[in-house]
Amino acid sequence: MEKKPIALACRLDSERAIKLTRRIFEFLVQKGEIVYLETRIAPKIFPHNRMDLGEMTAENIKFIVIVGGDGSILRVANGLSQQNPPPILGVNVGSIGFLDESNGRMIFRDLSRVINGEYTLEVCSKLTAYIVKTSGEIKLSNALNEVLIISSKSSKVLQISIRIDGIFLNRSYLDGIIISTPTGSTAYNLSAGGAIINPNMESMQITPLNSFAGSGLKPMIVPIDSEIEVQLLRPRLDAKIVIDGQQIIKRIAPNTRVRIRNAKSQNKFIRFRGSYYTRLRKKIIGTVRRVPIDDSPEE
Amino acid sequence: MEKKPIALACRLDSERAIKLTRRIFEFLVQKGEIVYLETRIAPKIFPHNRMDLGEMTAENIKFIVIVGGDGSILRVANGLSQQNPPPILGVNVGSIGFLDESNGRMIFRDLSRVINGEYTLEVCSKLTAYIVKTSGEIKLSNALNEVLIISSKSSKVLQISIRIDGIFLNRSYLDGIIISTPTGSTAYNLSAGGAIINPNMESMQITPLNSFAGSGLKPMIVPIDSEIEVQLLRPRLDAKIVIDGQQIIKRIAPNTRVRIRNAKSQNKFIRFRGSYYTRLRKKIIGTVRRVPIDDSPEE
Amino acid sequence: MEKKPIALACRLDSERAIKLTRRIFEFLVQKGEIVYLETRIAPKIFPHNRMDLGEMTAENIKFIVIVGGDGSILRVANGLSQQNPPPILGVNVGSIGFLDESNGRMIFRDLSRVINGEYTLEVCSKLTAYIVKTSGEIKLSNALNEVLIISSKSSKVLQISIRIDGIFLNRSYLDGIIISTPTGSTAYNLSAGGAIINPNMESMQITPLNSFAGSGLKPMIVPIDSEIEVQLLRPRLDAKIVIDGQQIIKRIAPNTRVRIRNAKSQNKFIRFRGSYYTRLRKKIIGTVRRVPIDDSPEE
Amino acid sequence: MEKKPIALACRLDSERAIKLTRRIFEFLVQKGEIVYLETRIAPKIFPHNRMDLGEMTAENIKFIVIVGGDGSILRVANGLSQQNPPPILGVNVGSIGFLDESNGRMIFRDLSRVINGEYTLEVCSKLTAYIVKTSGEIKLSNALNEVLIISSKSSKVLQISIRIDGIFLNRSYLDGIIISTPTGSTAYNLSAGGAIINPNMESMQITPLNSFAGSGLKPMIVPIDSEIEVQLLRPRLDAKIVIDGQQIIKRIAPNTRVRIRNAKSQNKFIRFRGSYYTRLRKKIIGTVRRVPIDDSPEE
Repeated sequence: MEKKPIALACRLDSERAIKLTRRIFEFLVQKGEIVYLETRIAPKIFPHNRMDLGEMTAENIKFIVIVGGDGSILRVANGLSQQNPPPILGVNVGSIGFLDESNGRMIFRDLSRVINGEYTLEVCSKLTAYIVKTSGEIKLSNALNEVLIISSKSSKVLQISIRIDGIFLNRSYLDGIIISTPTGSTAYNLSAGGAIINPNMESMQITPLNSFAGSGLKPMIVPIDSEIEVQLLRPRLDAKIVIDGQQIIKRIAPNTRVRIRNAKSQNKFIRFRGSYYTRLRKKIIGTVRRVPIDDSPEE
Repeated sequence: MEKKPIALACRLDSERAIKLTRRIFEFLVQKGEIVYLETRIAPKIFPHNRMDLGEMTAENIKFIVIVGGDGSILRVANGLSQQNPPPILGVNVGSIGFLDESNGRMIFRDLSRVINGEYTLEVCSKLTAYIVKTSGEIKLSNALNEVLIISSKSSKVLQISIRIDGIFLNRSYLDGIIISTPTGSTAYNLSAGGAIINPNMESMQITPLNSFAGSGLKPMIVPIDSEIEVQLLRPRLDAKIVIDGQQIIKRIAPNTRVRIRNAKSQNKFIRFRGSYYTRLRKKIIGTVRRVPIDDSPEE
Repeated sequence: MEKKPIALACRLDSERAIKLTRRIFEFLVQKGEIVYLETRIAPKIFPHNRMDLGEMTAENIKFIVIVGGDGSILRVANGLSQQNPPPILGVNVGSIGFLDESNGRMIFRDLSRVINGEYTLEVCSKLTAYIVKTSGEIKLSNALNEVLIISSKSSKVLQISIRIDGIFLNRSYLDGIIISTPTGSTAYNLSAGGAIINPNMESMQITPLNSFAGSGLKPMIVPIDSEIEVQLLRPRLDAKIVIDGQQIIKRIAPNTRVRIRNAKSQNKFIRFRGSYYTRLRKKIIGTVRRVPIDDSPEE
Repeated sequence: MEKKPIALACRLDSERAIKLTRRIFEFLVQKGEIVYLETRIAPKIFPHNRMDLGEMTAENIKFIVIVGGDGSILRVANGLSQQNPPPILGVNVGSIGFLDESNGRMIFRDLSRVINGEYTLEVCSKLTAYIVKTSGEIKLSNALNEVLIISSKSSKVLQISIRIDGIFLNRSYLDGIIISTPTGSTAYNLSAGGAIINPNMESMQITPLNSFAGSGLKPMIVPIDSEIEVQLLRPRLDAKIVIDGQQIIKRIAPNTRVRIRNAKSQNKFIRFRGSYYTRLRKKIIGTVRRVPIDDSPEE
């Protein structure tokens, strides 16, 4: 039986990331692995072993190493085949990141562990957004983190109405609305005041972005098989849809309805160190030092 | 086969509630129903048909009507037999309420609908808190809304550490911590900044109460089969545990650990009008009026 | 002595606003007042009496009536002569508004009151933003509500450092930062989580917009004679500056410093009904109905 | 002319604090200073030189050194003569603290600087709360940080109405309300969601504590010469008043009105290192590390 190849992807705009990717390539080749490079970086590393992200599946790729921060991981996660994509191992090179599991110092030890099967897989749901046209729905790219619907003009608030499973929830004035996965709950959702959700919970979160006084919408968690429909109500004010901070659909016209549902696709992340809760403390919520023995309120 | 009786409970401190309960009693008796009264109100309505809440189960009671606000519903829900309790129909008499489904004007029509089987049941998970002693765990009452662990001195902050499923999450300075059910997500949890959760989601939410600058804990949602352990760290500062705003356990000493897990019990609520999302809009989040035709940002 | 004229301004994109402005024009002319129209609407009302906003001062105009919502008032306030501009009377025509004092129903009675001198003036400070170049500072338009510095890419967070009076405050990751006047404290600042400030307080508020977990910046109020300096730190990520939701300066490059100081100009608003606090309740914070006699927690 | 003595105060329940106070006493005596000890700690240090806090003024005491955290400083600040109290130098011994300026390592160098006059004074306004009786107002202790009016039962919400300068602001459901000074803005006010205010701003902040959904009250800043009146509306639910987390007035009955006004007294704090903004960064808001050169969003 032929060995399944490992894939490599990386940022193009960071010399540091490209250099580390080159070292990972050499390390894996020396280990006797077959290595494929994402097409766009192949010329910088080894031009002959290239493959388009869209062709990579769990059938033809053992796993894919992504060198970069969360931005790179999101780009690649959405570029991979959406039918059974290969597991992802994220390698941070100094950026903001929560999705990564390794970094420049640990990666060589970590690769050996993955090759030896010493890891677990975190399975992450995704969302799909659809623009509703009289002729039917137009499907947009899948979202691993979130779908953001935002006013196309800075500081001009949208008015939207929200329906969940066909039931009218409310109308609000706000900058925008975030529909996030549990994976995305620690990303933009958190900055906007949403709650953190354990990735094992099959759910979507609806979080208003800077809602205007009197608009009572609050972060809300609904089952993942819900359908959320957002309609733009304000005349002459367009919106944008931003998927995972990357794909941007400009000029969604007033009255347009956008629907968000569970995607049929998932992404799998390679994990070995500590748990989700440990990662949460180290990367997001922090901790205070233990209380000193004398630090109690005086009687 | 004998007819299953209907039970009635109500506030004792509101003449309006007692008067309405008396009218409901008479209405049901006239309809040919057997009616039992919670022991403590029986003397005010009809002293002979009384039953302790703790004896009421879905086997011996068709459903229980509770006249009062959320406070009364929580008191009764926790007083009923925790093994298969009867369904609850809440009747609001002018108080703050989200759990109720009827009110003084609708109740007689609503009772007919329940008797005719025209309703659905909303099933709500509950939590149980345990105080950890060297000799074992001491079980406290079940919570339908939330378990609150709060400093016993106003404006003296606790320091707590939290573990989830045995894994250290973090240490924070805060007034207290709320562990809430989805049902409780619209109650104290919401005032403290937590998210709203659809009652069908099997989950618990951990929400810090007025956490001190630098304590990065955020509202967090975990699966309902998680075990949350909270330890009090600050020397000489006791805490209280408050369950559903009612049962109060005073003087939890420093270093004590409190665990919260899914209760083996659930409560069922009778619902007929509109959906959860409609109730949410009408009682909690509100809506803004539709945008006027001219109210768009000027070009 | 010649009578001082009254000026009129209005939205151009709302038939309702233009129609009301025409009626106000006729009402004032009938009252024997000299009326000037903002140049751009003169052709739609009375083409002969036109004047550019920039020429209007408290010396040559008694007061200016602005028909529209807050957007129109902000546009005009910033278009008027910045040296001693005439007092403003805002007339709402169904839009979101907090700055206005009158509406379509009250305006004719209100105009009589102003002409009779039955009113008070609310004096509002303004801010000026400057872009720092090696050659010196480039002054931008004055802000009555706020100066917003925001990432030029939706959901790509800026990193900024803030200095106040030359002292380093901190570095944060965030969507943007709002520097607002007390007048602007109930506008975008409030949606972003800032505090409401009485317009008599001579102050500026610094409010982070969706700051990223771990960036501890909070809404902060400083004296109005402070100098706030914001520097863009993230390589390759531009920002925009938006003044009062209107003037937009695109493509502020990485490393640029922007300074905000008290403007030498103020705007005056005509007020007669109730106080600031009444207006706040009616338009922004609302109130709950009085507690029913029975709505107390049960003993 | 006789030398003006220096005073010392400290926590009684911390061996570490007492030990440090003893060393400070000896250091000052050796320097030739006259040292007075707060009456209650005198027996533990040097029983002959004692003085009650209430007798200490800027006339008879050069300055007072307080060894402990913010709790100790608040206790002493409110215990000192309220007519022209002596300047305060706070010394932290490992507790939560923002008011202190020195610590166990720096204190001996810092004392020399104070004695040499190398310091500035930060002047802090205070508030006074009054309970309104038909017979007149009952004055409570002054507050350096805040006056907290809070429900006497955990998780039973108050309903209050607020008037500012006699004008009705609104009615809200909430756990309590905080009226804070700029000095107190970084304390409990901040945990409750209030804004940080530069201590030079003469102002009060009104901050709701866990307000219930639909109660639109927001943190609000008003001039320091305002009168804030809070009335308890909910029948049968008492409140407590907590001043600086220390003095507690229990059982404020329903319908009682409490008024808060600027106190006639101020406290002065000795400062030498860095500015207010530096202290804010180091103790409260923190900062993120400088963005790495590569950490920009990929094109």
